[in-house]
Amino acid sequence: MHQALKGWVLRLLLIHAKRFSYKAREPAVKEPESLSEASATGDFENALVVFSTVEQGDDESVAERAASEIYETASNLKPSTVVVYPYAHLSSELAPPTVAMDVLRKFADKLRERGLRVERAPFGWYKEFVLECYGHPLSELSKTIRKQETGVVRRAV
Amino acid sequence: MHQALKGWVLRLLLIHAKRFSYKAREPAVKEPESLSEASATGDFENALVVFSTVEQGDDESVAERAASEIYETASNLKPSTVVVYPYAHLSSELAPPTVAMDVLRKFADKLRERGLRVERAPFGWYKEFVLECYGHPLSELSKTIRKQETGVVRRAV
Ligand SMILES: [Mg+2]
Ligand SMILES: [Mg+2]
Repeated sequence: MHQALKGWVLRLLLIHAKRFSYKAREPAVKEPESLSEASATGDFENALVVFSTVEQGDDESVAERAASEIYETASNLKPSTVVVYPYAHLSSELAPPTVAMDVLRKFADKLRERGLRVERAPFGWYKEFVLECYGHPLSELSKTIRKQETGVVRRAV
Repeated sequence: MHQALKGWVLRLLLIHAKRFSYKAREPAVKEPESLSEASATGDFENALVVFSTVEQGDDESVAERAASEIYETASNLKPSTVVVYPYAHLSSELAPPTVAMDVLRKFADKLRERGLRVERAPFGWYKEFVLECYGHPLSELSKTIRKQETGVVRRAV
């Protein structure tokens, strides 16, 4: 598992949501994640939704670093749940699906190890969703997690 | 105005939304766009929401090209409204706010010239929003508009 994490970057878009719900509708890739591995549906209040794209990069410990960043944000925002939501739209250089799934599972596990309540949406499915963003200054953040530096861009519209 | 467009790239995240509403809450930059220039609030059904980030690049006609891409998508999805929604989170190399505002206004104007009903959310404001994504295979798309090539990434989760 750890080997699979070598060489990848995580691009994250964090939304602090008054409410977030989603529902998997149909497969979007050849071998989508089994719906027994992640929840086909979810409905949360006060959630930190982490839209997550795994792309090619140069990091060996990206899941650990990402978890550490998100833990810090969660300590400020105090969401009831952190939702790791696979998202292909934050980069055009995507990691292969199997690698992306490994990284996202590891990422979610590392968050749980820190005591956060974590849900993970299934990878490889078209999903409908409802997202209610609070709109306070910290309710939208983007982060790029790589080896050299961790770029944190505060919302600056 | 046309000079200001020189040298920038548009990163777009398109969501086909059953419903999209937003409300500007407080300024996020020193000189946010006047709320008389764009709508402080909006509430739409069947909207194509275009989350738009302007970053440094090499294109001279990015607004025109972007409008042409979005027009094509809109012709398929048939939204009632296209909402141009300034968004700083699709890149970490942002254009200066004045340039970004110019590009986004031009982008919206070019869409209107094609006969689409277009609303533009104000630039430089923290905004709360509610987004209901349909979840059909074409309901999430990302596009990068630049001179050399126009990368269109179909949702592949
Ligand atoms: Mg995805
Ligand atoms: Mg913005």
